[in-house]
Amino acid sequence: MPLDPARTVAELRELQELTGDENGAQRVAWTETWERAREWLREQVDFAEYEVDEAGNEWFTLRGESDRALLIGGHIDSVPNGGWLDGCLNVMAGVEVLRRLNEEGTPPLTVRLVNWADEEGARFGRSLFGSSAAAGSMIDQAELKDRTDADGVRLEDAVRAYGVEVERATDSRRQLENAVAYLELHIEQGPVLETMDLSLGVVLGTFGVERHLITWTGQAAHAGSTPMDRRRDALAGAAKLALDIRRIAAETGDGAVCTSGGVVCKPGIVTSVVETAEQLLDQRHLDAGKLAGMLAEAKAASERFAAEENIEVAWSRIWSIEPILFDERLKDLAEEAITEVAGTSHRLPSGPLHDAAEVARAGIPTVMIFVQSLRGLSHTKLEDTKPEHLELSVQALDRLTTKTLAAL
Amino acid sequence: MPLDPARTVAELRELQELTGDENGAQRVAWTETWERAREWLREQVDFAEYEVDEAGNEWFTLRGESDRALLIGGHIDSVPNGGWLDGCLNVMAGVEVLRRLNEEGTPPLTVRLVNWADEEGARFGRSLFGSSAAAGSMIDQAELKDRTDADGVRLEDAVRAYGVEVERATDSRRQLENAVAYLELHIEQGPVLETMDLSLGVVLGTFGVERHLITWTGQAAHAGSTPMDRRRDALAGAAKLALDIRRIAAETGDGAVCTSGGVVCKPGIVTSVVETAEQLLDQRHLDAGKLAGMLAEAKAASERFAAEENIEVAWSRIWSIEPILFDERLKDLAEEAITEVAGTSHRLPSGPLHDAAEVARAGIPTVMIFVQSLRGLSHTKLEDTKPEHLELSVQALDRLTTKTLAAL
Repeated sequence: MPLDPARTVAELRELQELTGDENGAQRVAWTETWERAREWLREQVDFAEYEVDEAGNEWFTLRGESDRALLIGGHIDSVPNGGWLDGCLNVMAGVEVLRRLNEEGTPPLTVRLVNWADEEGARFGRSLFGSSAAAGSMIDQAELKDRTDADGVRLEDAVRAYGVEVERATDSRRQLENAVAYLELHIEQGPVLETMDLSLGVVLGTFGVERHLITWTGQAAHAGSTPMDRRRDALAGAAKLALDIRRIAAETGDGAVCTSGGVVCKPGIVTSVVETAEQLLDQRHLDAGKLAGMLAEAKAASERFAAEENIEVAWSRIWSIEPILFDERLKDLAEEAITEVAGTSHRLPSGPLHDAAEVARAGIPTVMIFVQSLRGLSHTKLEDTKPEHLELSVQALDRLTTKTLAAL
Repeated sequence: MPLDPARTVAELRELQELTGDENGAQRVAWTETWERAREWLREQVDFAEYEVDEAGNEWFTLRGESDRALLIGGHIDSVPNGGWLDGCLNVMAGVEVLRRLNEEGTPPLTVRLVNWADEEGARFGRSLFGSSAAAGSMIDQAELKDRTDADGVRLEDAVRAYGVEVERATDSRRQLENAVAYLELHIEQGPVLETMDLSLGVVLGTFGVERHLITWTGQAAHAGSTPMDRRRDALAGAAKLALDIRRIAAETGDGAVCTSGGVVCKPGIVTSVVETAEQLLDQRHLDAGKLAGMLAEAKAASERFAAEENIEVAWSRIWSIEPILFDERLKDLAEEAITEVAGTSHRLPSGPLHDAAEVARAGIPTVMIFVQSLRGLSHTKLEDTKPEHLELSVQALDRLTTKTLAAL
């Protein structure tokens, strides 16, 4: 049975039928709908060895001539009202590659498909649950256990219902012991490939991220009785920075992005100058030095604006992660595979994080392939990719698997 | 018994003792504390005729040789955690003027002190309740009745407990029938007099106000995967306008003020470009034409910014009021009175609205005197004015009363 990429597209539609509704995909991790998706997946891969690890990750294994293992990964969980491709495309593409390999006999290396548990973190706000456990970078178990969902259910209790004990989750590290390569296909979730009219691209790595909450403090004052030149307007600082981060990103270049996702104003009423403005800032770059430079520039600009406006500014870090670069040799192989099936390839960074970043951080040579997203939309039922591009992406992952098995 | 301005300061302290706490004044209209303040007030003015009208306004009358009436007004209600002077300074200064007139025998005109009901609108969000009823500009009775406070109590039920039927409130219009002048003293609630090192000023009128909610609509997009040049950032429009209204106010001049009191961002998360930004805008000017010009300029700027950012902008009016200019002759008399007691006077507009604006709108010749506010603060327990300035303000109101009685 040769590779059948059209079957992957049909299976993705079947999965959406089974676990989505008129608002989109509903496979939120640690819910009944997610479990239904996992049951359905197990039925499709009944030809492989099955194992679920201490973090809830599912492993489907084809034993090879060597114990050294090539991993293909994805995640079947989604955000609420999510798209039909985010995460599960690679699971189902991996199933198709496994089918093809299984038909052909024993592969030279062991080949394993992993369905990571809770990539999205949609219910408890902690993404990359399963992959960070297996990569050994999950160090927040004590805090994780007490997280609660919108209904007040504790994470510890929710995951226990699916056989996972938070304190033992990192025992899943043994799954990576024999791994020599990790491959992941994903929709781009951005507009770059569509803009360039390309179907597929090689991912250079995942952006480093700096996230801060910036608090501007001025003085509340009556909107009617306070002359303009007597004001200490916290919103003015936030407004200047929201505009200036665009200059900083442009001057930094190489795909730099800076986003102010929101400003919360207090007292926030029509009759008062803003006393406090809490501003969110997210900065990303593939180069650690340039990321640090962007952060320093934004801090310097904020201090200049605070002085101009006679207000105060304070920064507090919400979260950060260093850039994670994928494996050079695997990137070359991915480029070969893409060029063979699509004629042209392109290298681009990944803005969003992926399970692949956790695996790469654990020292496993890793690469990702992106397939074009229509209008760059994701995390919405409007997320879509042309069927012909989905089929090309399955072919590219299959060729990359073959090349990697031959090279390692 | 001659005028005793020091007694007014002592009585204001006594009132604060009786109806305030460690967080400030608590005389919110239609509450027990407010009623306690009104009882106390009635005890101080037992020498005058007493009447409470259909809107809950209290009238203290000294019959004169003529039925034509000079009115002195203030409000004893406060915001929660309010200051010790806002509103009640004029009530108590008026009490002192009435005492002096009463000692001297029958005044040439009837003189009436009015304690307006619910100037602040703190409990139900509708300010100038009593004065708008008496001025006949209360036209929202049907909507008013169903307003609820934070505990869900309906306005209609709350005011009924104090003898007021909303539908009959405007019957209080008869109170203004014989009025020939209205005088009101108030703390400035702004920094202008303090900045000029002046104790007292004549109020030119109250600003016209244009209040709008401006909705900017862009496109939510992933903060990591969306290149800077592909974004449609709603916050960028709001930020540009928040800064540009300062240019508009400066170019308009003559005391123009423009305030953006807040921006609400959606989805408002760190990982997304802002899709919708709802921005509050308050613009004020004493000149109706200049106010209209500022509004037109802000609208034009917003459309320019929307085009630059490839986003949409929509305006919706929250509320507006025309500028209300005080009486020329009374302003001259107030200037004389202030100059006599303080050496220097100054004319300035009022940013906040006052009961005086309602009376002036009803066609009664009106003027206000402002006394310096320390640091421009009001609606907070930090609100304060030097005792010597308070005493000067009582003297100025008294002299203005004498001059008005002589002139009319």
